[in-house]
Amino acid sequence: VQLPTKATHRQTREFNVRLVLRTLYDLGPVSRADVARATHLTRTTVSDVVTELFDRGMVETVGRGPSSGGKAPILLRVPADARNVIGLDLGETAFTGALVNLRGEISHLVELPVEGRDGADALALVDQLVERLRHAATGALLGIGVGTPGVVDTPSGTIRRAVNLDWQDLPLGPHLSERSGLPVFVANDSQAAALAEYVFGAGGRRTPNLVAVKVGRGVGAGIVLGGELFQGDGHAAGEIGHVVVVEDGVQCRCGRFGCLETVASARAITLRYRQLRDGADGPARNGHDDPSLATVRAALEQGDPAARTAVVEAGQFLGQAIGALVGALDIHLVVLHGGVIALGEPLLRVIRDAAAQRSLPLLSGKVDIRPVELEANLVVLGASAMLLTSELGLSVSR
Amino acid sequence: VQLPTKATHRQTREFNVRLVLRTLYDLGPVSRADVARATHLTRTTVSDVVTELFDRGMVETVGRGPSSGGKAPILLRVPADARNVIGLDLGETAFTGALVNLRGEISHLVELPVEGRDGADALALVDQLVERLRHAATGALLGIGVGTPGVVDTPSGTIRRAVNLDWQDLPLGPHLSERSGLPVFVANDSQAAALAEYVFGAGGRRTPNLVAVKVGRGVGAGIVLGGELFQGDGHAAGEIGHVVVVEDGVQCRCGRFGCLETVASARAITLRYRQLRDGADGPARNGHDDPSLATVRAALEQGDPAARTAVVEAGQFLGQAIGALVGALDIHLVVLHGGVIALGEPLLRVIRDAAAQRSLPLLSGKVDIRPVELEANLVVLGASAMLLTSELGLSVSR
Repeated sequence: VQLPTKATHRQTREFNVRLVLRTLYDLGPVSRADVARATHLTRTTVSDVVTELFDRGMVETVGRGPSSGGKAPILLRVPADARNVIGLDLGETAFTGALVNLRGEISHLVELPVEGRDGADALALVDQLVERLRHAATGALLGIGVGTPGVVDTPSGTIRRAVNLDWQDLPLGPHLSERSGLPVFVANDSQAAALAEYVFGAGGRRTPNLVAVKVGRGVGAGIVLGGELFQGDGHAAGEIGHVVVVEDGVQCRCGRFGCLETVASARAITLRYRQLRDGADGPARNGHDDPSLATVRAALEQGDPAARTAVVEAGQFLGQAIGALVGALDIHLVVLHGGVIALGEPLLRVIRDAAAQRSLPLLSGKVDIRPVELEANLVVLGASAMLLTSELGLSVSR
Repeated sequence: VQLPTKATHRQTREFNVRLVLRTLYDLGPVSRADVARATHLTRTTVSDVVTELFDRGMVETVGRGPSSGGKAPILLRVPADARNVIGLDLGETAFTGALVNLRGEISHLVELPVEGRDGADALALVDQLVERLRHAATGALLGIGVGTPGVVDTPSGTIRRAVNLDWQDLPLGPHLSERSGLPVFVANDSQAAALAEYVFGAGGRRTPNLVAVKVGRGVGAGIVLGGELFQGDGHAAGEIGHVVVVEDGVQCRCGRFGCLETVASARAITLRYRQLRDGADGPARNGHDDPSLATVRAALEQGDPAARTAVVEAGQFLGQAIGALVGALDIHLVVLHGGVIALGEPLLRVIRDAAAQRSLPLLSGKVDIRPVELEANLVVLGASAMLLTSELGLSVSR
């Protein structure tokens, strides 16, 4: 352990500013004396820091609290709109961006269709999105939070590999930071979604441990442990889509064979449905009569056995993967999001049953597997929350 | 968030005592001024707390440090033997207990053979072990840390279920606490071992995220994340032995069928070896010619195909389970311990290959799967470390 005798005055000051800001944000409206009690800092230090926060527009007064004998104390809080963040979701069919305030409230939303762009074209679309949001911002911007598909090296802001966008070792964070002059935080979209579900899900009733599984074009998860996103040693925690579940299965876009994604993604389900419906000699793959998830859902509701089988097969693979993870971590909340949520309860029931069969009897009764509370803007909000945490040390709350 | 205006003087004091003690323990020898800088407490508060710690024998002086102008400051530290802890490992063949000091050093070790005891007889053996260690203790005892097989509800100190000991809903913590008057911390043995590997493994070079997998009579794991034991919502994190890996497999002692334990425990390996060697019509199960792991190891070294197959089959199941977990959590260190470590590199190679085939190519090259550094007293040391953390807020270091 390094002896912190070299802790400079500036470091101590920085530490105190973050501590006071977080306390005002979490507990406000509160008095300076309340803050001193909660932080174990002296009243003088708290007053100094509050003065600085006033100068930066990060604190405002909201009247006086009850007197405990002497003069009624002035109450302080952090204004929700003291800063705005740009949150981005580089989604499958559209890149979505929004201006988000310190309480996770969205004031301006822009959605740009991807229309098959990849490589440099996709990056240009990101730049365009950021430009439009910077232009729309009226107050001070704190930074840019990005949720992107693929494996992300968060410290360097580099996207290691995002297959659909044809990005490999793309330094998206430095690129956006250089163009905007703002700090940038880049993370995997499934991870961002998991954090958003923790912060905003279940009516803000925070569940400290949860797994959020996205099943859309890809399959991925985000894992929140102890109220914090767990990214793992290589920042790829949650990459359950590329765990092999079928020996000698079909090839995955990652290069391997039989990954969970090859049997449980939205496309895997619709293709399997068509195959079961039309037989092996049916219409050519990628023909324009490819069924959609809505078609599968409708067929399911009409009791179509092909739809039933396709959903059961995918649900069992998902349930087994989720069951193994939940069993190993003993986490009692799993939320699902992404395109296949359109398949509704029939899919969820299969997932629940398969998961329960896989994990310790003691646990299975306690595990709640359900759709996310708010599907809209999950990644945008999660990416914004990450930026707020990294820049201000704030854990977003409403 | 609850506004902490009701924080009493006593709570603040308690907070400060823990903070100062931890700082002295981690950074000592240090001066009072160093402690004030590191903790952001005032010099007066630090001096008050240090005086209290002197009275309790938790701090000692160790000469003077370099002067920075004025009088050379007195240096303080926490004496390693200021307190002792009783650490227990309720192992498969023996119950082991030791007196352990604040630096995790063992001064007295007692081992009592279990000899098939279970139920009340096994509990009486635990009582006997604790009595002998309390008798042997010369200084003040801080408490008792217990590592036990089975699922443990740590907050209440209750063993929910330990099949081999025939314990169900046994309030071991309250029982030991009542008899000894000491605080007791009870946790699963695989979890305790994982914490010990974090604290004492790799020459004390702490790896913040690791999975420690025990493969002996049972199969279980402990998961350390961010330098802390992760227990999960029901304190059963790491129970990978009871994840179903074989559809319609043989019945497990947990009641389910096809759990990992049924194909990868020490007994599963030796039975499978005998079956392959002797054929289905070989000697009766549980006969006294049951091969041991040492027999399997010797056969393996002589190129016996039955031994080879038994080890490969078990290793593949272990590797798949480990690969899925490591892939989902993106953890780069897995340590193995327990009886089957006797099978050495041949088993490890199979586990490594099977794990690599299961997880994302990006990750597989970085994951280190190896035996634990120190096999001896792993659970005793882990259980002691847990007690120290819960009682003093200390994270054991040497």
